[in-house]
Amino acid sequence: MNLGERLLNGDRRACARLISMLENNDLEAVNIIKELYKHSGNAYVIGVTGAPGSGKSTLTDKLAKEFRKRGKKIGILAIDPTSPFTGGAILGDRIRMNDLTLDKNVFIRSMGTRGSLGGMSRAAWGAVKVLDIFGMDYIFIETVGVGQSEVDIVKIADTVLMVMVPNLGDDIQAIKAGIMEIADVFAINKSDLEGADRTKLEIEMNLDLSEKKDYRPPVVKVSASRNQNIDELVDKLIEHRTYLEETGKIVERRKKNIRLEIMKLAEEEFLNLVMNKAHKGNLFDKLVDDVISKKLDPYTAKDMIMDFIKG
Amino acid sequence: MNLGERLLNGDRRACARLISMLENNDLEAVNIIKELYKHSGNAYVIGVTGAPGSGKSTLTDKLAKEFRKRGKKIGILAIDPTSPFTGGAILGDRIRMNDLTLDKNVFIRSMGTRGSLGGMSRAAWGAVKVLDIFGMDYIFIETVGVGQSEVDIVKIADTVLMVMVPNLGDDIQAIKAGIMEIADVFAINKSDLEGADRTKLEIEMNLDLSEKKDYRPPVVKVSASRNQNIDELVDKLIEHRTYLEETGKIVERRKKNIRLEIMKLAEEEFLNLVMNKAHKGNLFDKLVDDVISKKLDPYTAKDMIMDFIKG
Repeated sequence: MNLGERLLNGDRRACARLISMLENNDLEAVNIIKELYKHSGNAYVIGVTGAPGSGKSTLTDKLAKEFRKRGKKIGILAIDPTSPFTGGAILGDRIRMNDLTLDKNVFIRSMGTRGSLGGMSRAAWGAVKVLDIFGMDYIFIETVGVGQSEVDIVKIADTVLMVMVPNLGDDIQAIKAGIMEIADVFAINKSDLEGADRTKLEIEMNLDLSEKKDYRPPVVKVSASRNQNIDELVDKLIEHRTYLEETGKIVERRKKNIRLEIMKLAEEEFLNLVMNKAHKGNLFDKLVDDVISKKLDPYTAKDMIMDFIKG
Repeated sequence: MNLGERLLNGDRRACARLISMLENNDLEAVNIIKELYKHSGNAYVIGVTGAPGSGKSTLTDKLAKEFRKRGKKIGILAIDPTSPFTGGAILGDRIRMNDLTLDKNVFIRSMGTRGSLGGMSRAAWGAVKVLDIFGMDYIFIETVGVGQSEVDIVKIADTVLMVMVPNLGDDIQAIKAGIMEIADVFAINKSDLEGADRTKLEIEMNLDLSEKKDYRPPVVKVSASRNQNIDELVDKLIEHRTYLEETGKIVERRKKNIRLEIMKLAEEEFLNLVMNKAHKGNLFDKLVDDVISKKLDPYTAKDMIMDFIKG
């Protein structure tokens, strides 16, 4: 059996292998997904984001356990953002040593970026398809909501869970301002800490200010480490799913997500084209030299690159 | 006189007007810069970055004053990152009401983003050219080092100044990990606060760990609000410039920066092409529908977009 058939047959090693191949930008893996794409679409994708230190990983584990209790098969993709400058991991490895890893109906995977940030999105989105075809009911993509690329990753989820913690400084709040708006459900983790009620109030006030919609994101106080209120949070996640499905908004949303994905795939291919094609012929080097010596300006150089790529 | 001639003649209003036009993606402004590009190249560009709340704006003002004392003409571009989702400003307006604004040899400008983050880089890099042609000796670009786009903006500087403050939490440190590596000079602002020495030590230890180079970024304790050690910081900035110029590395660096700029300009144009061209003909909508109904997979849809753009 080839890798694709093995994936369809529920072979865990085939699943792991395909995700690794996607991380390495292996074209064979892409071709396998192309072929099997018609078998995807069963899984529901939940994006989990929040500042570093908000306890996303622990919370995701607890959510996975609750979904398991309800008979669902679970995939978890933990994305480790790495520095765009050295490729070194910021947050380190997040392989979990817990009972979830022994469960045959749970597939956990840490993914790092090799090279470009665009590559991270591509690999993560590909891995979601692999887990979907593999037969998972719910897939969690967990990532730090810091940069644009990480935001892009969770944006393709059906439901976005934003994990907050009490008393995060204003600095972090400012950083998060951009991603608060994509949250469908808020969890205040570590809510046994002082300040949880104030944080809840602040989020609610923020929601009061935002555009009125027929769905208002719920704010749930939980404690992942103490296993408190996890079932309620799962209920809220499922309520959001039900809302999307009953109103038909799920199709609208998935269209928007697929549009984003196609756009990002095209963008990455374009950048690779420029890097490889224009680079190999030394065209790029020559243009840069000409701009340095003021024979050319950067805008005209860009036009020349575009003409070269187009034909 | 047209706008370009007025800019060359030192007309402040022409300068302001051109920067506004760049913010609005006005092609006329781009054409004027293309024409005048040969008059650029005198200015030295200093990027100033750091977490929100590190006092970058105040420090930049004090640096500008010190450079003024030394007879230099100064441009300041303060970039306000805005949310990629609503376009609302995170940090609010930063127009400064101080004596610098009365100085004819200082040009201060706050820039926001209208729409895309790519657009922010394009406008900021264009504004640097305008200030350069306008005759400024030093240009500061000041931006929060949060997302990739903001990092891109300061990356095109000749010297990058990273502003730290004592006792920033680990959360912020993790976020900053990616941009620490692009710093040429570190300033620890608010160094009258407790913990400044520990922060200095941490940065020095970080530098000890990083790859050995013939230039080691200095770490300078300052207090912008108390006007302490600003002259030493200016000395260090100039020392980095001297280092780049004496070793010839300035050319290498500017080549790298111009390469990045051309790449980003091309990327933005490509995305606009996809959005406008593929969108107008409803090609994009049709592809998305086909992916939703599993007639197509996203990778093949991407290939079709690429073929369409190429011609």
